Amino acid sequence: MSEVNRQILLAARPSGFPSASDFQMVSSPVPDPGEEQVLVQVIYLSVDPYMRGRMSEAKSYAAPVNIGDVMTGGGVSRVIKSRHPRFAEGDIVEGITGWQEYAVLNGRGLRKIDPSFAPLSSALGVLGMPGLTAYFGLLDICKPKAGETVVVSGAAGAVGSLAGQIAKIQGCRAVGIAGTDDKVAWLTGELGFDAAFNYKTVSSYRSKLAELCPQGIDCYFDNVGGSITDAVMALINQSARIAICGQISQYNLDKPEMGPRLLGQLIVKRARIEGFLVMDYAARFKEGLTQMAAWLREGKLIYREQFTEGIESAPQAFLGLLQGANTGKQLVRVSPE
Amino acid sequence: MSEVNRQILLAARPSGFPSASDFQMVSSPVPDPGEEQVLVQVIYLSVDPYMRGRMSEAKSYAAPVNIGDVMTGGGVSRVIKSRHPRFAEGDIVEGITGWQEYAVLNGRGLRKIDPSFAPLSSALGVLGMPGLTAYFGLLDICKPKAGETVVVSGAAGAVGSLAGQIAKIQGCRAVGIAGTDDKVAWLTGELGFDAAFNYKTVSSYRSKLAELCPQGIDCYFDNVGGSITDAVMALINQSARIAICGQISQYNLDKPEMGPRLLGQLIVKRARIEGFLVMDYAARFKEGLTQMAAWLREGKLIYREQFTEGIESAPQAFLGLLQGANTGKQLVRVSPE
Repeated sequence: MSEVNRQILLAARPSGFPSASDFQMVSSPVPDPGEEQVLVQVIYLSVDPYMRGRMSEAKSYAAPVNIGDVMTGGGVSRVIKSRHPRFAEGDIVEGITGWQEYAVLNGRGLRKIDPSFAPLSSALGVLGMPGLTAYFGLLDICKPKAGETVVVSGAAGAVGSLAGQIAKIQGCRAVGIAGTDDKVAWLTGELGFDAAFNYKTVSSYRSKLAELCPQGIDCYFDNVGGSITDAVMALINQSARIAICGQISQYNLDKPEMGPRLLGQLIVKRARIEGFLVMDYAARFKEGLTQMAAWLREGKLIYREQFTEGIESAPQAFLGLLQGANTGKQLVRVSPE
Repeated sequence: MSEVNRQILLAARPSGFPSASDFQMVSSPVPDPGEEQVLVQVIYLSVDPYMRGRMSEAKSYAAPVNIGDVMTGGGVSRVIKSRHPRFAEGDIVEGITGWQEYAVLNGRGLRKIDPSFAPLSSALGVLGMPGLTAYFGLLDICKPKAGETVVVSGAAGAVGSLAGQIAKIQGCRAVGIAGTDDKVAWLTGELGFDAAFNYKTVSSYRSKLAELCPQGIDCYFDNVGGSITDAVMALINQSARIAICGQISQYNLDKPEMGPRLLGQLIVKRARIEGFLVMDYAARFKEGLTQMAAWLREGKLIYREQFTEGIESAPQAFLGLLQGANTGKQLVRVSPE
C-alpha cells in the first residue's frame, strides 16, 4: 500500500474551456479514519460532465469546489480500514470520494456493491448514476409510448447510450446524435438504435433529423443543448415531451449563448420541457437499479467503458469527456481491483 | 334588420406590426341558411391575441386565414333563422362567426347561452374561452399550492386577470406584470393581486420581480414571453411550473427573436415549461365553466370588459389589443342585445 495519497486539486476557475493547468496534483499522507468513519482506496473514479459545473462559481444546485480543494467526484472503492459499524475491511463501496487515491468517509451516501453481481465498474455506469439518469429521465419525464420516435443527443455517452436502448425496449424508434462516425456505427450497429448521425459532418441538423424522423419527434432526451436542440425543437410533434438531462454544449462558454426563442413552439405543439436531476429520484433508486440489472441480464442493454490509468490521468480524462473523446462511460482506473 | 352583411376581410399579410390597411370592409347580401344551418346576427365579437397568428402563413396549430377571406373570430350571436333541429329563432349562441355582422353556421362548436344566467358578453370572457384558458392553464399546468408565489404576465388582459385571481383563490401570492399604471392599480386595488408592476416604467424587470417575490417564483403563467419571461426564469424556485399561454411580445416580429438560452436553468431548478391550448381541454369545459360560474357568484372573480362600436371598429380594437390598450376583455359591440 502506498504511503501517500495523490490528490487532484482545483487550481483555478476556468473561463471557457478548462485546461490541464486548472488542476494540480499534490501528495499528502494517507489519512486515518476517525470514529464512525472508513478509509477507502479508490479503484475507479467516475468522470462526468456535471463536474464542469462544480469548477464554476455560478449558482447551481450544488456548491462549487473551492480553489485548492480536492476536485469532487464519485467512484468505486475498497474499504481498507473501518471504524464504521456498517462497513468492514474489504467491502466494495460506491460513493463520493473526490479525485484522489484514498479518502476518509463518514458512510453517508455510501452504498455497498456485491462484487459477484456485475463488474465493479458497472456501479458507475449502467448500474449506477448514469443508468438511473437514463432510466428516470426517459421513463419518468419523456414517458415514451410504443411506436413513438425518441431522439437522444449525446447519444454515445454513458447516459445517452442507455436512454436510447431503453427507448428501444419501450418499442420506440430511437434516433441518436453523436460526434464521430465510430460512435454512430456503435449506436446503430451494436446498440440497436434505428438511426443515428454525426452532427459534425452533416450540413443541416434539421434536414438530417427530418430524414431520420419521418413521423416527427415525440420525445427528446437532451444531453447537449444549443443548436442541436434548436433543430430538434423545430420537428417536435404535438404533445412532445422533452427531458433536459444536460447541456454540455453550453458548459464551457464564456458567457451565456443566445438562441432562437422556443416557447412559442411549445404552444403550437402543446409540448413540455422539463429539467431533472437524478438525485431527486433517490427514493426510487432501488426500482431503477433492479430494472436496469434485469435488462442487463436479459441482454437488452449493452454498455461500453473507457479507462485512463492512474489518478494523475483524471484531468485528461475529464477534458477528453468535455470534447466528446469518450464512447460510453469514461472512468479512471485509480488502483487495481 | 339590415339587408347587407358588413364583413372585415384579411386584405394583406402583415410583416411585423399589423395596420388598418391589412383589413378591408366589404358589404355583401345577408345569406340564407341551408338545411341543418342557422343564420345568426353577431352581437359581440371577441378580440383575441391568437388572431395575429391566423393572419400569418407560418405553420401553427390552425390554418391561416386566406387573403380575401373573412377574418376569423368568435362571438355571441342571436339565431335569426334556423333550419337546424338543435337551434330555434331567438336562441343566443356562442361560437366562431368571423368578423362580420351575419353568419351562416352549421351548428358545430356552437353552444347555447342562457341569457338569464349572466351578461351575454361574459360568454366571451370569464365564462368563456379566456376563463377556461386561465382555469386549465393555471390549475392543470401550474398546479399551484397554497403559499406559493404565482407570477402572471399580461396580467391585466382577459386571461391574465383571471389567472391571477384563481391563484389567489388557491391561497397563493399573486404578482402581476402589466403595461400601464392604471392596470397595475386595477390588479392590486380591485382584483386582489398581492403585487404588480408596470414593466414599461421599471429599470430592471428582474430587480422588481425579486423585490415583489421575496420567496422566489413557483409558478409562472406566461402570456407575453421575451425579456419579461427571461427575468422570471432567473428567479424560479426548485420544481417551478411554467405555463406558456401566449407570447404576445413575439407575434409582431419580422423575424424570430434571439434570447438567452434557458434550458440549463431548467436542470438547475428541476423545472417544467409547458405550452397549452384551451381547445385541448374541450372534454372538461363543463367542469371549468361550472367552477368559474360558482366563483363568480361567490364574488371571488372580478372582470372588466371594454367595447368598441360596430363591426367597422374590429380592426382598431384588434390593433389596440396588440398594443396593450385594453384592460380586461376587449369586445366589439356589433349589434344591440
